[in-house]
Amino acid sequence: MTAFMTPPAIDAPLPRAEFEARLRAIGDARYHDKHPFHDRLHSGQCSMTEVQAWVINRWHYQSSIPMKDAAFMSRCRDPDLRRAWRSRIDDHDGGPESGGGIRRWLKLAEGVGLDPEYVASGAGVMPATRFAVDAYVRFVRDEPLIAAMASSLTEMFAPAIHTRRIDGLLEHYSFANPETVSYFRHRLTEAPKDVRFTLDWVLTHAVTRADQEAAIAALTFKTDVLWAQLDALWNGYVEGRIPPGAWQPGEGQAR
Amino acid sequence: MTAFMTPPAIDAPLPRAEFEARLRAIGDARYHDKHPFHDRLHSGQCSMTEVQAWVINRWHYQSSIPMKDAAFMSRCRDPDLRRAWRSRIDDHDGGPESGGGIRRWLKLAEGVGLDPEYVASGAGVMPATRFAVDAYVRFVRDEPLIAAMASSLTEMFAPAIHTRRIDGLLEHYSFANPETVSYFRHRLTEAPKDVRFTLDWVLTHAVTRADQEAAIAALTFKTDVLWAQLDALWNGYVEGRIPPGAWQPGEGQAR
Repeated sequence: MTAFMTPPAIDAPLPRAEFEARLRAIGDARYHDKHPFHDRLHSGQCSMTEVQAWVINRWHYQSSIPMKDAAFMSRCRDPDLRRAWRSRIDDHDGGPESGGGIRRWLKLAEGVGLDPEYVASGAGVMPATRFAVDAYVRFVRDEPLIAAMASSLTEMFAPAIHTRRIDGLLEHYSFANPETVSYFRHRLTEAPKDVRFTLDWVLTHAVTRADQEAAIAALTFKTDVLWAQLDALWNGYVEGRIPPGAWQPGEGQAR
Repeated sequence: MTAFMTPPAIDAPLPRAEFEARLRAIGDARYHDKHPFHDRLHSGQCSMTEVQAWVINRWHYQSSIPMKDAAFMSRCRDPDLRRAWRSRIDDHDGGPESGGGIRRWLKLAEGVGLDPEYVASGAGVMPATRFAVDAYVRFVRDEPLIAAMASSLTEMFAPAIHTRRIDGLLEHYSFANPETVSYFRHRLTEAPKDVRFTLDWVLTHAVTRADQEAAIAALTFKTDVLWAQLDALWNGYVEGRIPPGAWQPGEGQAR
């Protein structure tokens, strides 16, 4: 039996390194570190209204993440996979005394002059933020497992933006201090731990070209989820076209 | 047994007329006829790029409506209710020769210089449009029946905007003619038929205050779905901040 002269199957899987490169290229092309809102935030050009709007809206994302991870675990028959995933929920929810990432986000909310109870209520979140974030939770609950896992891989690109954000906030805003930026500081170690496990899992288990393409599409989808949140924020609070029912500057201030 | 001196129960249902007035007030407060994009469109201020972007993105909404209605019918045990609802799918899909509202939308797409196959492919639809529209389909599939029905009642407010749109397009744009505006012309008779049935059904069956409030919230949610689409359109194509992967002016033109 000779194999030469046989053209590669149309759907031959990508070699592992090429598959990983395709995933990483998504970050270069469309991760939300490229969005002008982040330049504005990190360079100190945001007004406090814009910062508050960002904190209020991103709360919906942050507080949905452990629900997204629970949705993922609700689909895993494999205890090993559930065990590996569980630390994500721990990171965000923490213990009853110490709290986790979500409570750290509320410290930021307090730091920027908002009533943390108002922020935690989710009142004032823009509908567009909700639509995008809820689409992510639904995606992880409903789509095939490899795609559901791959959608979390924006964490590959997160440490760079978090480093820039910590530096930028501390340099430019009087609200920034070790307590208010501690959410981002923790993510510098949490995200790489998650990525190591998940990237290896996806690279190993996506053995068909179709699975690889589904993983690439899932990561692309997730960058859309992040980008759409910043577009909505820009439109609402930089341009000042606040949609009906969303937070109005001055509402929800710390008492 | 004396009833006087008894305060009304906290959750006493609203009288039918008041409940209807609450539903109608949502239109006055936040239906998307108030969005600046519609002023711009109906007064002839939109560039052809903006019109094309509107047609491409609203395609995702139009083409999802029969899926939304099928999702609704998939939950109805009552053949009478399914029968009453079925005409909505007929209106949008029509017969294989004649087509329905969806095919009429593609006539508009052709009229504004787009390749109808490109539009029908859904390529280039903004992620934010998808997130909003898909949230609507999910809502109708998952939420309680009264809320699912009430979310369709934006049709109460549609004839006025469609009349203004037909007039505005015919007055200001050379692409407008009886064929390209026929989608809207048909909606002038289809929507009131749907509303008569659904409004009466909701007013009659929402007998607790909680059900009434759920109906009001559902209709509010639906106005958010419509508004968010126009915010995304404005941000992307009036302000020119096109999100990654979305339609670029010049793509998908008629050949």
